[in-house]
Amino acid sequence: MPLNKLIQDGDNQDLTQERFKATFDTDELAAVFNGGEDRLQRIREVRDELTKRGHLFDALPAAHRTRAERMEDVSRKVRNSAQGFQMTRKMKSDFFEFASLYSEYETNFFIHNFLRFLHPSNYSLLKNLMENVSDFADFTNNADMLIITRDVMGIEGFPLALHNLMFVPTIQNQADDEQQEWWLMDALQGKIIGTYAQTELGHGTNLSAIETTATYDKSTEEFIIHTPTTTATKWWPGGLGTSCTHVILVANLIIDSKNHGLHPFFVPIRDRNSYSSMPGVRVGDIGTKMGVNCVDNGFLAFDNYRIPRRNMLMKHSKVSKEGVYTAPSHPKVGYTTMLYMRSEMITHQAYYLAMAMIISIRYSAVRRQGEIKPGTQEVQILDYQTQQYRLFPGLARCFAFMTAATTVRQMTESCIKELSHGNSDVLADLHALSCGLKAVVTHQSSQSIDQARQGCGGHGYSDASYLPTLYTCSVGACTYEGENMVMLLQLSKYLMKAAAKAEEGAVMAPLVAYLAKSDPIENGDKYGKLLNHFEHVARHRVMHAYRQMIEEEKQGIERDYAFANHSVDWTKAARAHTKLFIARGFVKKVQEVSNEAVRDVLNTLAELYLSYELIEMSSDLTTNGYLPETEVQQIRHQVYDSMRKIRPNAVSIVDSFDICDRELRSVLGRRDGHVYDNLYKWAQMSPLNQKNLPHVEKYLKPMTSKL
Amino acid sequence: MPLNKLIQDGDNQDLTQERFKATFDTDELAAVFNGGEDRLQRIREVRDELTKRGHLFDALPAAHRTRAERMEDVSRKVRNSAQGFQMTRKMKSDFFEFASLYSEYETNFFIHNFLRFLHPSNYSLLKNLMENVSDFADFTNNADMLIITRDVMGIEGFPLALHNLMFVPTIQNQADDEQQEWWLMDALQGKIIGTYAQTELGHGTNLSAIETTATYDKSTEEFIIHTPTTTATKWWPGGLGTSCTHVILVANLIIDSKNHGLHPFFVPIRDRNSYSSMPGVRVGDIGTKMGVNCVDNGFLAFDNYRIPRRNMLMKHSKVSKEGVYTAPSHPKVGYTTMLYMRSEMITHQAYYLAMAMIISIRYSAVRRQGEIKPGTQEVQILDYQTQQYRLFPGLARCFAFMTAATTVRQMTESCIKELSHGNSDVLADLHALSCGLKAVVTHQSSQSIDQARQGCGGHGYSDASYLPTLYTCSVGACTYEGENMVMLLQLSKYLMKAAAKAEEGAVMAPLVAYLAKSDPIENGDKYGKLLNHFEHVARHRVMHAYRQMIEEEKQGIERDYAFANHSVDWTKAARAHTKLFIARGFVKKVQEVSNEAVRDVLNTLAELYLSYELIEMSSDLTTNGYLPETEVQQIRHQVYDSMRKIRPNAVSIVDSFDICDRELRSVLGRRDGHVYDNLYKWAQMSPLNQKNLPHVEKYLKPMTSKL
Repeated sequence: MPLNKLIQDGDNQDLTQERFKATFDTDELAAVFNGGEDRLQRIREVRDELTKRGHLFDALPAAHRTRAERMEDVSRKVRNSAQGFQMTRKMKSDFFEFASLYSEYETNFFIHNFLRFLHPSNYSLLKNLMENVSDFADFTNNADMLIITRDVMGIEGFPLALHNLMFVPTIQNQADDEQQEWWLMDALQGKIIGTYAQTELGHGTNLSAIETTATYDKSTEEFIIHTPTTTATKWWPGGLGTSCTHVILVANLIIDSKNHGLHPFFVPIRDRNSYSSMPGVRVGDIGTKMGVNCVDNGFLAFDNYRIPRRNMLMKHSKVSKEGVYTAPSHPKVGYTTMLYMRSEMITHQAYYLAMAMIISIRYSAVRRQGEIKPGTQEVQILDYQTQQYRLFPGLARCFAFMTAATTVRQMTESCIKELSHGNSDVLADLHALSCGLKAVVTHQSSQSIDQARQGCGGHGYSDASYLPTLYTCSVGACTYEGENMVMLLQLSKYLMKAAAKAEEGAVMAPLVAYLAKSDPIENGDKYGKLLNHFEHVARHRVMHAYRQMIEEEKQGIERDYAFANHSVDWTKAARAHTKLFIARGFVKKVQEVSNEAVRDVLNTLAELYLSYELIEMSSDLTTNGYLPETEVQQIRHQVYDSMRKIRPNAVSIVDSFDICDRELRSVLGRRDGHVYDNLYKWAQMSPLNQKNLPHVEKYLKPMTSKL
Repeated sequence: MPLNKLIQDGDNQDLTQERFKATFDTDELAAVFNGGEDRLQRIREVRDELTKRGHLFDALPAAHRTRAERMEDVSRKVRNSAQGFQMTRKMKSDFFEFASLYSEYETNFFIHNFLRFLHPSNYSLLKNLMENVSDFADFTNNADMLIITRDVMGIEGFPLALHNLMFVPTIQNQADDEQQEWWLMDALQGKIIGTYAQTELGHGTNLSAIETTATYDKSTEEFIIHTPTTTATKWWPGGLGTSCTHVILVANLIIDSKNHGLHPFFVPIRDRNSYSSMPGVRVGDIGTKMGVNCVDNGFLAFDNYRIPRRNMLMKHSKVSKEGVYTAPSHPKVGYTTMLYMRSEMITHQAYYLAMAMIISIRYSAVRRQGEIKPGTQEVQILDYQTQQYRLFPGLARCFAFMTAATTVRQMTESCIKELSHGNSDVLADLHALSCGLKAVVTHQSSQSIDQARQGCGGHGYSDASYLPTLYTCSVGACTYEGENMVMLLQLSKYLMKAAAKAEEGAVMAPLVAYLAKSDPIENGDKYGKLLNHFEHVARHRVMHAYRQMIEEEKQGIERDYAFANHSVDWTKAARAHTKLFIARGFVKKVQEVSNEAVRDVLNTLAELYLSYELIEMSSDLTTNGYLPETEVQQIRHQVYDSMRKIRPNAVSIVDSFDICDRELRSVLGRRDGHVYDNLYKWAQMSPLNQKNLPHVEKYLKPMTSKL
C-alpha cells in the first residue's frame, strides 16, 4: 500500500509518480492539518453523505452563469442541503443522540443552520436543545456547517450567510428572553431572514461617526428610525440586497434629544409575503464586486420609519415605556463576536490558500514546459527553482496559518469564558493579537494565492482554474471585518504601550515579554536561533518606532501626532510582532507531532517558513550588528535547501489537505491530473458557444457576410 | 485663474480646496505626462469630437451587464466609433491632407482601425496611402486609436482587438504582394475578421513544443492542417471564441515528412454568412477569465482540414507547387512585432496605474474617516501617513513607467529601422531590456493598483470604483505576452553573458557597463548618489548570482543546471538591473523639464521613487559595507519627507493625467468629488433591483411567506 492514499489507476502518470515519492502517510498528515483524526473522519463522513445527494450539485460551473443564475443556484442548494440533511439517519432518529456526537458548540451551530426546516412536531425538542447550549451561543462553532458550505455552496457566499453568521447570533446574544421567544424560532426556521446593518455609506470602521438615528417617541412608545443624510445610508450588509425581511439595525439611540450611543434594533424591512420594501424603507442591491457575488450586499435607508419600543434589543441596554434608559453592565460584551469572527477568518484564509496550493502544485507536476538544458525533454514546471519559490512558501504558510488559527480560536474561546465570569484581563492582549493576525494572514494569503495563480500561467487566469475566485475571496478579507491598515495601527497602539513598559522595566504580558529582552549571545538550537532572529527584528522595529516617537514628543509634538508621523514604521513593527507569534506557534506545533515521517516533512516546511519570512525582513537582520552578512546568506540558502527537500513530497503534501475535486472546483487542480481534456470540456459549456449571439448577429455578420 | 484647471463651482469642497493648493499649472504637467503639448491638444480634440457623439456611450455601467450583453455593447461601439469618425471634417475632406497631420506611423494605424467602413470609391485612395506607409507597417502607432478605444470601449477589450493588433499587421508583414492583394483590403474593411493563433492548450512560451501540423499534399497542392492531440488545440487567441472568420495559424510546416518548423497560414475557420464553423474545424469560446471578458478568447482544432498551397504566408518563406521549400533570408523578422507589443504594454500599464491613482487619491481627499487625535474632526484619509505610503509610490511610478515606455518605444522604433537595413547589433540588448521592463512594470503596476484599491476600503472592492477592473486588466499582463518569470530569466541569461564580460574586462554595451565599475568613493550630487546606490544593488546581485554559478560549474555542474540552481537569485538581479534603467530614465526626464514649478513637483516624485525603490531593496544596500545603516535610515526618512511634500499637490498631480470621468468609469474617482450620491445612483442600476428575482421567488418566499 503506497503512503499516498490518492493513487488511482488511470491517473496522469506524472502525478502518480509524484505520489509514489511520498515519504509519509497522507492520511496521517491530513489528520494533523484538519484538526485530528476524529475531525478528519467526520469530514469524510459528511462528504460521503453529501455524495449520496446528487441534487445538491450540478454540472454547470458557476463561471458560466450570470449573477442572478448563480444566486438562484446557491439558494436552491441552501434549501436542499438543509432539507437533505434532515434525511440522514443520525439526525432523524433523536436529537439528543445526535447532539451527543458533537460538542455543545457544534450542536448549537448545526441546529442554527440545518434544522430550520424541521417538522413542527420537533420544535419543542429543538427548543430544549437550544436552551441547553445557550451559554455557548457566542461560539457558533461552524465545524460541520463549514464542510457542507464549502462542498455544496462553495466559497462565494449565499443569501443566508449573514443570517447565520450575524443575525441569529445577535438575537441570541442581545435580545432579552421575551424577545427571543418572539423572534428566535422564526429566525432559526428561516421564516424571517435577516442581516446585520451597521456600516454606512460614508462611515466604516469609525463607529462613532455613524449617523442613523432611532429617536424614542414616548407618546406612541415607538422609535423613529431615520437616515438623515445620503452618507448615513446603510451600505454593504450581506443578504440585504434582495434576501432579507429583517435587519439588526445599529443606530444612535436618542431620547429627549440626548444621544445614548449605538444600539441594536430589530427592524422589519420587507413584507414577508411580497418582498416589497416597507413604506418608509428604501432598500436594494449595491451591485457587483470584485468577488463574492453570490452574496447580495445591499443598501438601506429610512424616512422616519416607526418600530415599537420593544424592537430595541434589550438584553443589555433598556429603554422603559417612559423613556428611561438603562445602560449595560458589561460594556465589552460586543467584542466577543468580533473576536470570534476574526479567528474564523484565519481558518478561512488557510483554507483558501490550501486550495490554491493544491491547484497550483498538482498542475505544476502535470504541466511540462521548457527545457533546463536545450535539446533535453520538457520539464515539469515544478522543477524550476523560480516556480518552487512562488509556491512552496505559500505551502508552508498554509500550515503556519492553520496552526495560528487553531491557537487563536482556543485563546478566544477561553477569553470569552473568562469574560462571562467578568474577567477581562486577557481581552486587550487577545484583541491586539487578533488585529495583527487578521492583517498579516489575509495579506500574505492573498499574496501567496496570487503567486500560485500566476505560477499557472495563462490557465491560472481562466476561471476554469478557480484561482481568480480564490484570490478575490481571499483579498476581500484584507478589507472587511476591519481594514488591514487600521488593524495594524490598533496593534501598534498596544505595542506602543508595551514598549513603554519595556523601557520602564515593568512586568510584561507573555506575548510582548521579548521586547524587554536583549539580543541573545548564545543562540540555542536551530529553531531557537531562528526564533531569536524573529524576536530581534520585531523588537528592533517596535523599539525603534517607539523611540522615534518619544524623540518627537520631546520636541513638543503631542503623542497622537507623533504616533501618526511614524505610523508606517509602526505598521512594519506590528507585522514583525505578528510574524513572531505565527512562527513560534508553528514550531511548537511541529514539535508536538508524534508520527516521525509527518514530523520530518513538517520540519522542512517550518524551516522554509522561518527562513523565508526572515529573508523577507532581512534588511533588519543586520541592524545593530545583530547578524553578519554571511549568516543572512546562510538563511537565504536554507530557503533554497528546504525547497529542494520539499519538492519530492510537494504533491503528497497538498493531497493531505484532503479537499476533494467537487469542493476544489478547479480543472487545473483535479486529483487525476487530467487537466487538458477537462479544460476542453469546461470550455464547451461557455454560454458564448450558443448560436445567434447578439454581437455576432447585429454587428459582425453585417460586416462579413457577402451580399 | 487658479493653477489647477479642473476647479469648478459646485464641486466637493475638500477637493476644491486641494486644487487651490496646486503649486504648478496642471495643463503644463498634463503636457509632460501625455507626451507634449501637441499630443495633449490632440487628445482633447478627439475627446471633444467623441463628446458630440452621444450614441457612442451609454448610461448603464458594464458591471451591470452579463458578458453577452457587454460583448454586444462593445461591438456596437466599435462599429459606431469607426463610422462616427468618418464624419469628422478632417477625415472626410482629403486623405492626404488628413495624413499630413500625422506621422506616417499614425496614419497607417488610423487607416487600419477606423477607415474600414469607407465608401468603395475611396478604396484606391486608401490603397495608395497604404503603399506609401507600408515600410512602417511594423509600427502601427496607436496614438489616436488609443484615445478612442480608452474613451469609448474601455480597457476590457472588444472582439476586433486582435484583428487590429495582430491579424492585419501579420498580413502586411508576412504575406507576399499577391496575397496582400487578395486579403488585405477585405481585412481592413472588416469583411473578414481574424486573429493570431499560436499558443496551444499544452504549450505556451516554448514555441518549439507546438504540435499543430500543416502537411503539404503535392497531389492536390494543398496543406492538410491537423491537430494531432488535445494539447495541440489552439487556446487563448482573442476574438477566436465567437468573432473570427479567419486566423493566422502558426503550425509546423511538413513537406515529405520533413518538419521545416513554424510558419504562418491564412486559414478560414467560419463561414462569413452563417458564422458556422467550417467542416473539419472545431472552434469556440473558452469561457470567462479573471478580467478582460469583452474579449472572446477561444479554442481551435482541425481534423485534416485542407487549405490551398497559397494560403501559407509567403513573403519570407515559400513552398513551390512541387513542394520545394525556400527559407527566409532574415530569421529575426518576427521579433519586431513582439518588441513593439511589449513597449506598448509599458504604456498601458502606466495608464492603468494613472487611472488607479486618480481614483484613489481623489477619493482619499473626499473620504473622511477616523481622528488622529480623539475628539477632533475626522480627517481626510489622504492625511494618514499609511495611506500616503500606499498611494504615493504608485503615483511616482506612473511617471517613471511612462518615461520608460517612451524611451523603450523610441529605442524599439530605431532598432526596427536598423533591422530593416540588416543591422541587428542592438537587438539583443533591446530584447533583454524589454523582457525586464515588461516583467517589472506589469508586476509593480498591478501591486500599486492593488494597494490603491485596498486604500479605498470597502468601496474599492465594489465595481463602482472600477479598481477591480483596473487590477484584473493590469495583473493579466504579468502573464500574457511572455510570463514574467520567463521574462526575468531571459534577461538573466543576457546579464550572465554581460557579467562574464565584466569579469574579463571586455567592452560592455552601455546598458550593462556599470557591471564592470567599482562602488564609487565620491558620490556626486543627490541624484548621482541615489543612482549609484541602484547601481550598487544591481551590480552586487548580478555579480553575486554569476559567481555562485561559476562556483558550481567548477564543481562539475553543467552551466545550464548551475544557472537553474540559482535562478531565483538571477530573477532578483534582473529586477534590480531593470529598476536601475527606469530610475536613470526618470531622473533624466525630470531634468529636461523646462517649467520650473512642474520640474519641482517632478523632482519630489523622483526623489520618492528613488528612495522608495531603494528601501524596497535595502537589504542589499549594506552589503560589502557599501552604506552605513545611518545612511539607509536617511533614505527611509527621504521617503516620508517626499510624501509630505507631495501631499498638498497630490490631487493636482492626478488631475494632470488629463483623464476624463467618462474614460475613468469610476464613481470614486469623479472629478467633482460627489462620490456618495453617485454611489447611490450607481447601485440603483444593479439588475438585482428588478422585481421577481428567481432566487427570491423560488426559494426565499416559500420560506418566509405566512400561509
